[in-house]
Amino acid sequence: MASSMTLYHYWRSSCSWRVRWALAVKKLAYHSVPINLLANEQRQASYLQINPSGSVPCLSVQRRNLSESLAIMEWLEEQHPQPPLLPSDPWTRAQVREFCGIISSIQSVQNLKVLQYYSSQAQDRQQWARYFIEQGLQNIEKRLQMHAGSFCFGGQLSFADLFLIPQVYNAKRFTVNMQPYPLTESIYQRCLLLPECDQAAPHNQPGANQSP
Amino acid sequence: MASSMTLYHYWRSSCSWRVRWALAVKKLAYHSVPINLLANEQRQASYLQINPSGSVPCLSVQRRNLSESLAIMEWLEEQHPQPPLLPSDPWTRAQVREFCGIISSIQSVQNLKVLQYYSSQAQDRQQWARYFIEQGLQNIEKRLQMHAGSFCFGGQLSFADLFLIPQVYNAKRFTVNMQPYPLTESIYQRCLLLPECDQAAPHNQPGANQSP
Repeated sequence: MASSMTLYHYWRSSCSWRVRWALAVKKLAYHSVPINLLANEQRQASYLQINPSGSVPCLSVQRRNLSESLAIMEWLEEQHPQPPLLPSDPWTRAQVREFCGIISSIQSVQNLKVLQYYSSQAQDRQQWARYFIEQGLQNIEKRLQMHAGSFCFGGQLSFADLFLIPQVYNAKRFTVNMQPYPLTESIYQRCLLLPECDQAAPHNQPGANQSP
Repeated sequence: MASSMTLYHYWRSSCSWRVRWALAVKKLAYHSVPINLLANEQRQASYLQINPSGSVPCLSVQRRNLSESLAIMEWLEEQHPQPPLLPSDPWTRAQVREFCGIISSIQSVQNLKVLQYYSSQAQDRQQWARYFIEQGLQNIEKRLQMHAGSFCFGGQLSFADLFLIPQVYNAKRFTVNMQPYPLTESIYQRCLLLPECDQAAPHNQPGANQSP
């Protein structure tokens, strides 16, 4: 059966990875449309008609378009609850959303749009991104000490992992030293071995490594 | 009956306003603890034990602590669904969450922590904040043209309004000219007249206007 969903995404966008991974866990097929952020395809009129934010990812479902990774994932969770990516316990579910919020705040400050406005110098950008990612990882590592198991929240894969792993990938791109964050690193390494995570990972996307 | 909830918040924090407003709509009493961000109270050891993020707001419920405004609001919505602040239609609910995500991305880039790291100069900070707020408001105004009524989504108050109004308040602090955003401005003015919005607004909080 042809898929009724289209995902507009960019291979190295961490927010795109979150959504690709959620789609893979829920075994949902989609038509894939790469949007090359470095070629400014997100600012072309044809794309702005689909997503006025000019951001990725964006999921199209029956000609209706939805951007913002967490909103997309909440919608997928409501429509396709199995397998679940949010815990059934209300307080733990709230904590997972809190964790996602913390990572969103890191991502928002170190994303391409902000870096481009901050400086044209690669070194300045790296220093900026590293500062905010390290601040965030310190917080995350402390929280993981309270609730991690094999995954961020005990033994159940959740939105928290789908947010964390792409953020750690970003950290590594910006040469953050992961040694102070052993729990974070161990969950990262464990998740990379999951077929759904790997399938959704940057290196398996169209256009990967063609741009820096 | 004594309230079982404590809210740690700062009078001028836009994320705190969102949560205070949600609590007011749902008529939930809480014990109020002001955290003075400019006096660095959010970085004191006693507060970091409550919220390792060192951010506001944070809601304590039976000695369990939850930060990140959207996570808090989702939890309140699940526990106290009446009156609802999320639409019953799944797609519209997804769009409300998308809208909140867009505003979160603006807020994350112009919050105090980022501004403090960016520059010590008030003028630099204002220019930075204004750039990202204006980019965000252009996007928001376009979206409001598609779905606004009295409020952001038709005639029903939702998370979207609880996110938008504090962001517009921030825009005005940073002297953003609101003329290009007439729909945004009209919803802002309408919401300010709502008793629950006003009760939760910065000027009605402890410590208001004692710091710049």
